[in-house]
Amino acid sequence: MPQWDSLWIDGHVATMARGVAPYGAIRDGAVAVHDGRIAWVGAQADLPDAPERCARRVHALAGAWLTPGLIDCHTHVVFGGNRIGEFEARCNGASYAEIARQGGGILATVAATRAASPEALLAGARSRIMSLVTGGVTTLEIKSGYGLDLDIERRMLVTARQFGSELGIGVSTTYLGAHALPPEFAGRADDYITFICDEALPKLAAEGLIDAVDAFCETIAFTAAQVERLFRRARELRLPVKLHADQLSDVGGAALAAGYAALSADHLEYTSPAGIEALARSGTVAVLLPGAFFTLRETRLPPVAELRQHGVPIALATDCNPGSSPVLSLLAVMNLACHLFRMTPEECLAGVTRCAARALGLEGDRGTIAIGQRADLVAWNISAPAELSYWIGHNPMLAVVAGGEVIATN
Amino acid sequence: MPQWDSLWIDGHVATMARGVAPYGAIRDGAVAVHDGRIAWVGAQADLPDAPERCARRVHALAGAWLTPGLIDCHTHVVFGGNRIGEFEARCNGASYAEIARQGGGILATVAATRAASPEALLAGARSRIMSLVTGGVTTLEIKSGYGLDLDIERRMLVTARQFGSELGIGVSTTYLGAHALPPEFAGRADDYITFICDEALPKLAAEGLIDAVDAFCETIAFTAAQVERLFRRARELRLPVKLHADQLSDVGGAALAAGYAALSADHLEYTSPAGIEALARSGTVAVLLPGAFFTLRETRLPPVAELRQHGVPIALATDCNPGSSPVLSLLAVMNLACHLFRMTPEECLAGVTRCAARALGLEGDRGTIAIGQRADLVAWNISAPAELSYWIGHNPMLAVVAGGEVIATN
Repeated sequence: MPQWDSLWIDGHVATMARGVAPYGAIRDGAVAVHDGRIAWVGAQADLPDAPERCARRVHALAGAWLTPGLIDCHTHVVFGGNRIGEFEARCNGASYAEIARQGGGILATVAATRAASPEALLAGARSRIMSLVTGGVTTLEIKSGYGLDLDIERRMLVTARQFGSELGIGVSTTYLGAHALPPEFAGRADDYITFICDEALPKLAAEGLIDAVDAFCETIAFTAAQVERLFRRARELRLPVKLHADQLSDVGGAALAAGYAALSADHLEYTSPAGIEALARSGTVAVLLPGAFFTLRETRLPPVAELRQHGVPIALATDCNPGSSPVLSLLAVMNLACHLFRMTPEECLAGVTRCAARALGLEGDRGTIAIGQRADLVAWNISAPAELSYWIGHNPMLAVVAGGEVIATN
Repeated sequence: MPQWDSLWIDGHVATMARGVAPYGAIRDGAVAVHDGRIAWVGAQADLPDAPERCARRVHALAGAWLTPGLIDCHTHVVFGGNRIGEFEARCNGASYAEIARQGGGILATVAATRAASPEALLAGARSRIMSLVTGGVTTLEIKSGYGLDLDIERRMLVTARQFGSELGIGVSTTYLGAHALPPEFAGRADDYITFICDEALPKLAAEGLIDAVDAFCETIAFTAAQVERLFRRARELRLPVKLHADQLSDVGGAALAAGYAALSADHLEYTSPAGIEALARSGTVAVLLPGAFFTLRETRLPPVAELRQHGVPIALATDCNPGSSPVLSLLAVMNLACHLFRMTPEECLAGVTRCAARALGLEGDRGTIAIGQRADLVAWNISAPAELSYWIGHNPMLAVVAGGEVIATN
């Protein structure tokens, strides 16, 4: 009697398990799946029996590579409207000030998200998420932060949750009420933080809609003191935190995040050596976002060499959002990280698998191909794992498997 | 009786015709196709009859946009082997000198191409071309230049030609014997040019395999004098020329190309003001290649503002090759051109349609949606033409039409 639901053979496996071969690679490997989990992984020659006697379904990879399902650990993929007009104006030379005067920026998306019907919000996000999934994503984080009130933030989080069941992928929801100051609180940022801490956050948390709490700590957003009020409230509610930190200036965001044992500190272009040491001590993941760096034409690089040196895990994500990072492929992010941030292809693949899982607090559950992990796999038509970072504008996906089920093929 | 083979309705049309609305746009437009050519284009309300009485097949666009089929006017997409190991070594800090010592660079691909079976050469290129086609490409230029002898150069050109009939796309072949000096001619560059001029070029031209002649004019490749010998020979054979010009230094390549009324001068990062004026006078298209600029981490920008000012048509292409530009999407190229070269989304779309057609000498035949042009069309799920330059790692293609036939859908 076959002991497993399915078995992948005749290919190679980049397990991304630490401390073994580069990429945790097993050439001529096999992976067995049972009850939605990895049941066996190893050299095909070591299988306990002939493949067809091991599993009910046998998938022949014909020399393709299997990797863990990719994890996009920082997205704003649920939003209303679009900012294509703003993009075109910028390309035609309009300054940020002119665009702001014309009602552009985050608040343009807040207005469009508030105005969107639930159906339109769902349909727009679904199309974008399907683009991510066909590029290998099996788990993604989705932030709120374009409602900035109670009802629309709730709608964003409910929409995000829905994709988990509808598409069979993993979804982590993050409450980002502290993304921008809504117009109705103009000039009253402290009052808005009070509203978040006393009303929105506890209510949405009680409804089970929040997996983590995030904030935008920046001179143009919220101060460290305001973020600390929010993080203390999150701690009371036993919710983990993450932070948009040091993207445009060094506001001490990394150290602040580390002080609350944040899951991740994200962006980090301006993070100081002290901030890096704090991240290393707290075990916080550094999430780098080359799509935003590229789109905003930033020149200050995140401190990759120093993060590496201090052993801070580095994750990569799309930061998918309509303004500063219209990115819908983790493969594109990996390529950008190689070229712009001088990361290696192996670091890039770890950044969208093992390290990204940790940035979501899911490292025991997914992000590597190992027995007991969720059976999230991608089969790729590539000759070596580095090829995933190599092409620009090419998707070598053959099959995407989430929880043991094939959810996309090419 | 329906007068047309097919009709596209219920969408918008970016005709890319010059001198009318931005993008030559017709909102609520319609396009009719007959005998593989555009038979009618205009506002849907102006159709001569009800759609189903106008054409045998009616395609409803449901609000999507039609553009001309995209044209990739500079590729090296036929090659053997891959350079992924070299890419990974570079990302891990290996210098170009170290990679050259390990046998990397163009000559690595020459060796792999010479060693590849015809079947392997075809299969590899087919997979890459299908990636381009699903991204909207209906015509592409393919260069030889990895054989550098008679037989393998012929094999590359024959392979390239084959895709035209097999995939229904347009293929322009370019003989690039003067790409690099083959090992058997080491130290004898003039003798190699003699071999090209006296043997390879006339033979391959007589076999009808060559649509244009190209060369790599650079301090690390061939001198202006050597290129001139080749161009004079091309002129005798009545073959148009193009040139890899001024990519890494100002060697006067643009002016040299202009002097032979070249179809295009390509790269142009170091082109001088005099070179730009020469291009303007000769009507030569400037083909910019942001994928190579990005991959090689160049910092010297091509003179976009000056080209614009002098009215030089600017085309964009993938430069798809395994070393300096592993790019398989013109949409990715458009996005790179916006961000790196400060081109506008409209310039980018013209650069991969109307101007790219001109760079191949095909401007009367394709590149715009106008009566009599080849019926090469792409339907896109976008809200405005600028959206084609906006996303990173997203392909909104709905249908690709070449010569009136649907060759890809999504």
